[in-house]
Amino acid sequence: MAFLDHIRACNAYSLGDFVPFRVGPAKAGWIRRELSLELRRFGSLFHVFEDLVHLEPNLRTAADRTEAVAEALAVLAEDGVIGRLRGEMYPVIESLGAEPLFEIDRGVATEFGIANRGFHLNGLVGEGADTRMWVARRALTKSTFPGRLDNMVAGGHPAGLSARENLLKECAEEAGIPEDLAARAIPVSMVSYTMEVPAGLRRHAFWSYDLRVPADFVPQPVDGEVHEFLLMPVDEVARIVETSDEFKYNCNLVIIDWLMRTGRLDPEHPDFHALSVGLHQPWP
Amino acid sequence: MAFLDHIRACNAYSLGDFVPFRVGPAKAGWIRRELSLELRRFGSLFHVFEDLVHLEPNLRTAADRTEAVAEALAVLAEDGVIGRLRGEMYPVIESLGAEPLFEIDRGVATEFGIANRGFHLNGLVGEGADTRMWVARRALTKSTFPGRLDNMVAGGHPAGLSARENLLKECAEEAGIPEDLAARAIPVSMVSYTMEVPAGLRRHAFWSYDLRVPADFVPQPVDGEVHEFLLMPVDEVARIVETSDEFKYNCNLVIIDWLMRTGRLDPEHPDFHALSVGLHQPWP
Repeated sequence: MAFLDHIRACNAYSLGDFVPFRVGPAKAGWIRRELSLELRRFGSLFHVFEDLVHLEPNLRTAADRTEAVAEALAVLAEDGVIGRLRGEMYPVIESLGAEPLFEIDRGVATEFGIANRGFHLNGLVGEGADTRMWVARRALTKSTFPGRLDNMVAGGHPAGLSARENLLKECAEEAGIPEDLAARAIPVSMVSYTMEVPAGLRRHAFWSYDLRVPADFVPQPVDGEVHEFLLMPVDEVARIVETSDEFKYNCNLVIIDWLMRTGRLDPEHPDFHALSVGLHQPWP
Repeated sequence: MAFLDHIRACNAYSLGDFVPFRVGPAKAGWIRRELSLELRRFGSLFHVFEDLVHLEPNLRTAADRTEAVAEALAVLAEDGVIGRLRGEMYPVIESLGAEPLFEIDRGVATEFGIANRGFHLNGLVGEGADTRMWVARRALTKSTFPGRLDNMVAGGHPAGLSARENLLKECAEEAGIPEDLAARAIPVSMVSYTMEVPAGLRRHAFWSYDLRVPADFVPQPVDGEVHEFLLMPVDEVARIVETSDEFKYNCNLVIIDWLMRTGRLDPEHPDFHALSVGLHQPWP
């Protein structure tokens, strides 16, 4: 196990089994060929070719596309072709700064390989060698990665919120961080990768924030997403990342990025360049 | 002009006019086809094929290769086929953590497209909105980029020095920074790119360091590389980078990276992801 192994794991994919999902000329995502065949039953909505899925071009507004796709997804979820829908909408964007093409249930973000934004927040106490990091242990009842370690706060980016609004909302909901404290978080990086999983393609880009919290502040699980919060010396956090899979997969990248940004990775580390490149990948 | 334009300029290249330069199985660099034809006159040293230049495999040690290549370069420089040799040696490496294959004069690093390490240092005074940055104006007599703005200290990485030794050496030579102050510099990032220029291919990776200096410290040009040092508000530095080419080309990237790491780039900036990816590129 090494830092680079986490980056390789998050950047392992092959597009051979996927077809592009297009909305007009825009690249909206990637869909497994197998799932694309299932979409054929909605022939007036999804135009399925051998090497492409094209959304019906006569759906001209984002709202029309959102509604039509949601109806099809409800049928597919009912039939067990796709996983559980969440009732929370993600914007479908071609690139990070682009206007949303439409909105889609977050439960199928990976199945449709849509570009998925979000943020991770490093909660920090103290200075220099005495720096400690607040680490969350995910609720044991969560459907994804129960009991694994996590950054202090993290969240996907739902439709309709600004980056700052989502940050403040998740800080309050996940860790009981009051707004005036959460507002001090500093956006310092973006970690991005594409990762193939059985369900599809995770195309993720997370803003990374650093937040210094007072020594007497203790985060509180509010919405039940977190089992407990642990305050760990950063050397211990680095050791866990370097030697294990205790952290949820993408949290490792956020912490490696933090170690690099704060002078905690030796410039002579043989993987310095590979880590730097691997943390900041373009999307296919 | 925009931040992304600087990144695009530093990552503009096409390999169509280059052939790989190999030492055994290792990729040592890239050479313009036109220059590769000139190497044919050293047929026992450079084996020149249509799609490859291969260094004589019977040169088994780094020292043997260094000596043989230096002899050939002296002839080529004498004949004006390549530019001026500098008498300073760079290690030839396949990747950042790899053992040097041999050493080559820094004057032909671009002609041979070798992977070129170095560092840039951001000299910083003050905190928060009052932060100022020490900026160097390059000597008007320099052969490269005379009179352009530069980071406080920067330097290529010569053979035989550690990253830290080179940092301390250049800080003393270029800006008169005493060793105990320079030693406080923190390695915080790596900026990497590949850039085609008439002479060949710049394959660069620079460690970026941040150094906070006391308000009463004033850097002094020592070795004549710097015309003057200027202490600028960071908003002014950011404006110059965003709107002009006043900085030497790669210094723009170091400053954009600094702006991102310190929360000075809005997460909603439409190029946030493209900038993040573009600052940290792999080498061909």
